[in-house]
Amino acid sequence: MYAGGYAGRILRIDLTRKTWTEEPLSEEMARAFIGGAGFGIKHLFDEVKPGIDPLGPENILVFAPGPFTGAGVPCASRMAVTGKSPLTGAVGMALSGGHFPSEIKLAGWDAIIVEGKAESPTYVAIMGSDVRFRDARHCWGTLTFDCQQIIKNELHDQNVRVCCIGPAGERLSRIACMINERRAVGRKGLGAVMGSKNLKAIAIRGTQPVAIASEEKYRVARAVLLKAFKDSPVLYPEFSRCGTSMVTDLTGAMGVLPAKNWSATGEFVPIEGIGRDAHASRTIGREHCYDCPVGCSQLRLARTGPYAGILSEGPDFETIYSFGSCVGMTEVDPVIAADRLADELGLDSISSGVTIAFAMELFERGIITIEETDGIEVRFGNDEALIKLLRKMAFRDGFGGVLADGTAAAARRIGRGSEKYAMHVKGLELPGYDVRALKAHGLGYATSYTGADHCRGYAFQEVFGVPIPWPVDRFAAEGKGKLTIWNQDTRASTLDSAPMCAFLLDMAVPDTACQNTSALMEAVTGLDLTPQEVLRVGERINNLARAFNVREGFTRADDTLPERLLTEPLKAGGSKGHLVSREELDKMLDEYYSLRGWDVSSGVPTRAKLAELGLGYVADALGV
Amino acid sequence: MYAGGYAGRILRIDLTRKTWTEEPLSEEMARAFIGGAGFGIKHLFDEVKPGIDPLGPENILVFAPGPFTGAGVPCASRMAVTGKSPLTGAVGMALSGGHFPSEIKLAGWDAIIVEGKAESPTYVAIMGSDVRFRDARHCWGTLTFDCQQIIKNELHDQNVRVCCIGPAGERLSRIACMINERRAVGRKGLGAVMGSKNLKAIAIRGTQPVAIASEEKYRVARAVLLKAFKDSPVLYPEFSRCGTSMVTDLTGAMGVLPAKNWSATGEFVPIEGIGRDAHASRTIGREHCYDCPVGCSQLRLARTGPYAGILSEGPDFETIYSFGSCVGMTEVDPVIAADRLADELGLDSISSGVTIAFAMELFERGIITIEETDGIEVRFGNDEALIKLLRKMAFRDGFGGVLADGTAAAARRIGRGSEKYAMHVKGLELPGYDVRALKAHGLGYATSYTGADHCRGYAFQEVFGVPIPWPVDRFAAEGKGKLTIWNQDTRASTLDSAPMCAFLLDMAVPDTACQNTSALMEAVTGLDLTPQEVLRVGERINNLARAFNVREGFTRADDTLPERLLTEPLKAGGSKGHLVSREELDKMLDEYYSLRGWDVSSGVPTRAKLAELGLGYVADALGV
Repeated sequence: MYAGGYAGRILRIDLTRKTWTEEPLSEEMARAFIGGAGFGIKHLFDEVKPGIDPLGPENILVFAPGPFTGAGVPCASRMAVTGKSPLTGAVGMALSGGHFPSEIKLAGWDAIIVEGKAESPTYVAIMGSDVRFRDARHCWGTLTFDCQQIIKNELHDQNVRVCCIGPAGERLSRIACMINERRAVGRKGLGAVMGSKNLKAIAIRGTQPVAIASEEKYRVARAVLLKAFKDSPVLYPEFSRCGTSMVTDLTGAMGVLPAKNWSATGEFVPIEGIGRDAHASRTIGREHCYDCPVGCSQLRLARTGPYAGILSEGPDFETIYSFGSCVGMTEVDPVIAADRLADELGLDSISSGVTIAFAMELFERGIITIEETDGIEVRFGNDEALIKLLRKMAFRDGFGGVLADGTAAAARRIGRGSEKYAMHVKGLELPGYDVRALKAHGLGYATSYTGADHCRGYAFQEVFGVPIPWPVDRFAAEGKGKLTIWNQDTRASTLDSAPMCAFLLDMAVPDTACQNTSALMEAVTGLDLTPQEVLRVGERINNLARAFNVREGFTRADDTLPERLLTEPLKAGGSKGHLVSREELDKMLDEYYSLRGWDVSSGVPTRAKLAELGLGYVADALGV
Repeated sequence: MYAGGYAGRILRIDLTRKTWTEEPLSEEMARAFIGGAGFGIKHLFDEVKPGIDPLGPENILVFAPGPFTGAGVPCASRMAVTGKSPLTGAVGMALSGGHFPSEIKLAGWDAIIVEGKAESPTYVAIMGSDVRFRDARHCWGTLTFDCQQIIKNELHDQNVRVCCIGPAGERLSRIACMINERRAVGRKGLGAVMGSKNLKAIAIRGTQPVAIASEEKYRVARAVLLKAFKDSPVLYPEFSRCGTSMVTDLTGAMGVLPAKNWSATGEFVPIEGIGRDAHASRTIGREHCYDCPVGCSQLRLARTGPYAGILSEGPDFETIYSFGSCVGMTEVDPVIAADRLADELGLDSISSGVTIAFAMELFERGIITIEETDGIEVRFGNDEALIKLLRKMAFRDGFGGVLADGTAAAARRIGRGSEKYAMHVKGLELPGYDVRALKAHGLGYATSYTGADHCRGYAFQEVFGVPIPWPVDRFAAEGKGKLTIWNQDTRASTLDSAPMCAFLLDMAVPDTACQNTSALMEAVTGLDLTPQEVLRVGERINNLARAFNVREGFTRADDTLPERLLTEPLKAGGSKGHLVSREELDKMLDEYYSLRGWDVSSGVPTRAKLAELGLGYVADALGV
């Protein structure tokens, strides 16, 4: 049995009945799924019936930190939130850091499962083992920062941590996020799931320390990690000081920073205005997730025009892309302002930016006109349009209602061939890496169980040139199936389930992430998982998530990329001439499915593979 | 010697040297001035040399709660902040509630005196007796709500209370305020004094309970007060639920709600849009000052158009006037949005609204043109203009720079006879009571040591019809000298120096405010001041403040009202035809000075009066 790390208790909240129950966490579950996304996806597959409406009461939300969360392990102050995504219809899983995840553990819980639907707006206040359902009708309509403060004041506890939704989640925007402190549970519309349950917020406070199985092993495992952090040439020197903004310059130079809704990658690269140095000029400080030594979260203050005085955490690289290059912005301050506004409204910054970029391209091409856009000149580079549309989207006001559910829905509403310009996979808007010249990224986006997801589809090898686990040619399709599996499984086991910060893998210990996780598991929980077993957890998670999607009707045909990336070569810049041809994509998929042990023609996991992973019951459920 | 209530210690902070010292609080000082404004004005007169620049390092700021603050006395969670006003050149004193004032006491201080000027932006963190000077360069430029949160995070203490300035104070706007939590130290530009000292914020946390001299007397005195609260027909039934918004309806019906820069009082009364019920429709909750049972502070959420989702504390009646009727607004949501924005920017809501109303009248009259206003149609009722101008004022951007220092400065900058439309006394913009039909109010505004100040110049008798201390005809000038003195001295002793909330006098115990204060003094501090002696403290304060102003060159000629109020009768409504004629004003002043024991021709306190109040040294200083 685990001797530390885990609280051993899962909190199940039934909003319909306003009751809560405590369930034990079995060692089997801990061993097989570690925590975080592992726990979330396991509960999702087991408890959510196929075909349900993600915005109906049958959906669940699993808030799951991991065994190291709150235990003083650096880079482990995170949680996964899992439910069926209203944006994609597939597994919806998003990670978040800050302080809320640790507070779950300090309150004595390994996960919080929310089910049902409250009759009227409610928030749940969890003080250790005391769970209260509180009226939130008065908070309905508040912006996320105000909402958190109102709840702290109401509970007479400024140290309570609150995860809430804004107007976007309340109005069931399928690109709505949750916000805790300044941090988002960003993608896949999980904020709308909260909204559909009439759940405005969860407030939590805990005071129990997380137990450590072996103080001696803990000291060593922690020291190894901190040493790796110190040795990283970029972690403290760059990311601690400037966050991920330097990726803007890097991808710009490589010719893979998507611009103007992916129509001008390599052509339009306004690095001077929106790159690392521009953002550094606005940085006034940084904030740390619970117990994190790095503090990558940058506080930036806009300085000019109508944006002067607006503060935002970040924007991180993805938001610099979505509210910057993707919408054709050449100045830093509108990016900061849009980032803050999206957080306040509870809109995912990537999806909302890309959706606005989509509308801008349609407008520029004359597919939509100013009569449809409430008189707004929805053109690339129009910062006023960006700000106005964000607000309209969150409130489903006029043209904002057309865009409020992301690009895929907007394309369906608009029609007129607009889907051609809708940059998404499975409904999830593309992150900021032009995969035409980053092919493992491309395959990662195509096959990730969540859609085009920078956290599941990332290939740091292609971006940072790190030859781990082997050297990689970013332009080549060959071997990308194997690399993608390594990336996906490593990420799922270490970053999504422990869950640890992406920096761990991408910056600090790319070669030893599973070893470190293995050592930490033993030190913190007392469970002995070899590095291979840790990696196996990742494989199990990816198979189980795939199975969920298969059960929902997803097939190989859904593992694709937007048409533009398959047909339009990059026109300029450091990756000029490249694209992912359909043949290349097919070849990569064949390799990927084959090495996954999945049926190559359908992309469905085989019984043999599932059984090998201890998921025989899943094979039964799928009828394979 | 006092046995409770007072901490006995005054904290003096020298920003120039980055040092601090502790000074004892003498019983003599406590008896003579009680606390709050009494302490502040005493230090101001004694320490600030005549003629200094209010925005120079020679000015001081005194943050003074009172003997009951933090001691669990209802309605006593307040402080006075005193310095030489950069807006008026006279005594600048403003009150604020919330939690910051009590925290000063809990940290073991009766007052904090700030002097000098920091070399670069600084904030002071006071943890009990530990005082630190911290770099605030990174916070410079932040809005007030963000600034408070940044400092709480930096100090790793979410329970620290922060009083800070926004961009307006940094840019030395002479109508800049300070903000603590959601509450303002609003008027007379004291935020600019903080800015001139490079002091972005004071953060404070304390843990020492305030001692009580006699628990038994305390219990009784407190019960008497709470009983009076319960008995009040308006305090809980109305003010606890709707704040002061009902005063909008009341003054509207009386024909004394100033509209369109006082040009349309009685004509333009859009109560439906901006009155009590409109505000009640936006109210989502309320917040309490430290230990206050009433909680008049309303949280209101704007619901429509570009303002949807914007939350504000209040707006209280004065702000409903300044951002509502005075600027010709007919809808509630822009008022809420402007209130929040002014708080974030650190602009006094009364002064900034009245200044914008002044610009609107000039624009409507063609005295200023759109070429001067950065292309903004500065017309009554233009909510976009209101919002844009607030921002521009705080940042001194374009036309905002013309308005940034209030109406009197704007009139000087604009010239062209515009002073005729500048609604201020001694430079302080008029609060929301048209004194043409509230004559004690008029005399109060004219003679208050701070200029046109609703906290010093209020006559609840005229507004609420309460016949205490005697029945009053609001249209009559007769007897208003005596009434004004009673109001000013009672307010100075109970509301400004204890300092207690205005509700105490205006709603709960108008007839026994001094008796209650006397009983509380004995119970909490052990000092035996009769009710007459308490009232005498108020007289002492008003005389000392007057002496400060005389020393600065103020004369009877400054005790006047804007020309419009002396020459233009009200054109419509419940007070149609009324004005304060010059003859009436002179008659009221004669009575006032005479009963004050001041020289009637100059308005200067006599030696006899000063000596009687124990202020002989002041007579020496004035050479009278």
